[in-house]
Amino acid sequence: MSTPPIEWLDSGITAPQGYRASGVAAGIKPNSTKQDCALVISTVPATLAGMFTTNVMRAAPVEWNAERCAMGMGRAVFINSGNANAVTGDQGHADVRTTAEAVAEAIGCTPEEVAICSTGVIGVPLPMERILKGVEESFRTLRPEGGQDAALAIMTTDTVPKEVAAEVTLSSGKVRIGCMAKGSGMIAPNMATMIAVITTDATVAAPELARWLREAVAVSFNAICIDNDMSTSDTVLAFANGAAGLPAIEADSPDAGAFRAALTAVCEETAKRLVRDGEGATKLVAIEVSGAPSEDDAKTICRAIAHSQLCKTAFFGQDANWGRFACAAGYAGVGFEPGKLSIWLDGVQLLADGQPTGYAEGDAAAVMKQPEFTLRVRIGEGPGEARFWTSDLSHGYVSINADYRT
Amino acid sequence: MSTPPIEWLDSGITAPQGYRASGVAAGIKPNSTKQDCALVISTVPATLAGMFTTNVMRAAPVEWNAERCAMGMGRAVFINSGNANAVTGDQGHADVRTTAEAVAEAIGCTPEEVAICSTGVIGVPLPMERILKGVEESFRTLRPEGGQDAALAIMTTDTVPKEVAAEVTLSSGKVRIGCMAKGSGMIAPNMATMIAVITTDATVAAPELARWLREAVAVSFNAICIDNDMSTSDTVLAFANGAAGLPAIEADSPDAGAFRAALTAVCEETAKRLVRDGEGATKLVAIEVSGAPSEDDAKTICRAIAHSQLCKTAFFGQDANWGRFACAAGYAGVGFEPGKLSIWLDGVQLLADGQPTGYAEGDAAAVMKQPEFTLRVRIGEGPGEARFWTSDLSHGYVSINADYRT
Repeated sequence: MSTPPIEWLDSGITAPQGYRASGVAAGIKPNSTKQDCALVISTVPATLAGMFTTNVMRAAPVEWNAERCAMGMGRAVFINSGNANAVTGDQGHADVRTTAEAVAEAIGCTPEEVAICSTGVIGVPLPMERILKGVEESFRTLRPEGGQDAALAIMTTDTVPKEVAAEVTLSSGKVRIGCMAKGSGMIAPNMATMIAVITTDATVAAPELARWLREAVAVSFNAICIDNDMSTSDTVLAFANGAAGLPAIEADSPDAGAFRAALTAVCEETAKRLVRDGEGATKLVAIEVSGAPSEDDAKTICRAIAHSQLCKTAFFGQDANWGRFACAAGYAGVGFEPGKLSIWLDGVQLLADGQPTGYAEGDAAAVMKQPEFTLRVRIGEGPGEARFWTSDLSHGYVSINADYRT
Repeated sequence: MSTPPIEWLDSGITAPQGYRASGVAAGIKPNSTKQDCALVISTVPATLAGMFTTNVMRAAPVEWNAERCAMGMGRAVFINSGNANAVTGDQGHADVRTTAEAVAEAIGCTPEEVAICSTGVIGVPLPMERILKGVEESFRTLRPEGGQDAALAIMTTDTVPKEVAAEVTLSSGKVRIGCMAKGSGMIAPNMATMIAVITTDATVAAPELARWLREAVAVSFNAICIDNDMSTSDTVLAFANGAAGLPAIEADSPDAGAFRAALTAVCEETAKRLVRDGEGATKLVAIEVSGAPSEDDAKTICRAIAHSQLCKTAFFGQDANWGRFACAAGYAGVGFEPGKLSIWLDGVQLLADGQPTGYAEGDAAAVMKQPEFTLRVRIGEGPGEARFWTSDLSHGYVSINADYRT
């Protein structure tokens, strides 16, 4: 996809018109005074689309949000960190509804227009008294510049908040797309929950919003990994409230192309920030696979390399250990001719059609010493290509995740 | 499978009659005086079966051995450590043949009766002068008690040799099964090559040997993981030379049942030793999944948990973090009712039909502090069950694999 005609903005989800946000501390995170409740509302009704984890064990709020997104309309999302409300049985579902009802009453809409996200410890019922206090406090503190407060409140092991926003010029005027996200891994036993909320003041019908979100997520949030564990709670929500006052973006119009490109760029930039801030991560490695029979095949090989413990420890060790990259490509489950395999680190070619190139080890080492670089793999002459981003596997990762839950 | 009527023996591949083995240092391992060439021969013609990596990038000797095993007859296997002869192009294939010819000339058979295995650095041509010296030396030092020398010579990052042998009583007399194996991970950039050689003095026709080996490998070597990377060189070879002088074991006979059970027990014991000695491993965790729609489904869930970085770091941290186990089961790709999920650590039940049991944290911690324990997961009422063994993910693993190749 070509670079969209976009301008990057400093702030996040409140950059588009017609959104208010807040972040407050309600004592959900144990032994902490950190912010742990975020509220984002649209001042007018908005279309809503979402993408969710495919984990069988999906958390209660994920089930709730999937129903909301099927309706295609929404006004608000309330998010707590510190407790995932996952594997909490019937009580978990009841708590989601109670929370949505409280938000709905405060802002004056139906509970069915309120999305709910939770991230944190698994298997423990939500502390509802504190949650309801969080709803009240976060409603009271809503403001047009509250995006960063919200982005801070949804963090778990994240070390920095992730906020991205861009302005895109359509034929009829300018619209904005904002995004906040969290996801770095887990404090034991929290799940590696990735949550992203996207806001736009463009006018987009629900079916288009859902389709364009799916496209954008496929090449951004679904093209990253920090560890190899898919969460019970992964959630991406997109609100489009039309507050820019422009006509609805028609499917297949030039404006649709510009908007989709901007949406994808915002998602991609946010996704890369998640990986950069991954648990223990010291590297952001882009993996580009080409020459595969199909895009799916290319992505399968990307994923095998991105998940490989041996590749990830080689990234950490800054070692151009191309045998590991070739090996991971080889076991991905996609057939190819070993004699057609070529591998590059940025501009340094390590393997050419199955033959070592005799590259200078120092050149490859120089690439891997950078905090960010690209590993490029070509497996043949096919049209399929894909891109993925991964972090390295470091001592920091092991330390973070071997810790006791206390 | 019920416990076979077997007696464990101290030694390994030379425990059965009619085998000779040796291990010598030929300078294949760089900067090392360690043994790096092993030779195992049968004094009489033997049937031969093998199982190999399914990696697209399989190494030259793997291709050679697959052809040998298709013929079903063999006399010897020569193994070098220190160089995997993988991704070495046409030269690699030529070097395999040259080595087999040298072994064949020494022992008086055809090159097609000689299997060849290599494990170590990838992408570097074999130092053939040293390999041929290794063939000569290892042939000269063959002896009936040479099993341990061979087991030492095939080690890479292994810290202990793996030798297993058992005697099984058939209707017509006793036969023995011996096994040696290596596989702990890699010294960068060596692949995590697992090689096992099984010898028996039973008389077994090639098709039965192949079938029974496949069965045994499925629940032993194919039911373990140390890291999530499938090697280019994984190889299991089984020789049956009939030197015990007993009649051939008929398929579907009681003797076949006893032999298969013993073969499986030997493979399982060897596989567990590989995991115990896995790179950086401090734990051997058995994962048992039951109640799945099929055995394949059960194994898929076993594998998801066994490969999960979060589960493996929880094992290392001795943290009964059952949310991670439930999460990994949930993303394995097998459908099940979350409300049917139950989880145990040895005798301590953590989750019962989707509900936390309120177990005492101290009881679970006591299980996980052991060097070996069982994680049991039931996902429903189906007949499918499977077992898997995995190691933990430790700082030691990261250190070993982040090192430079030098």
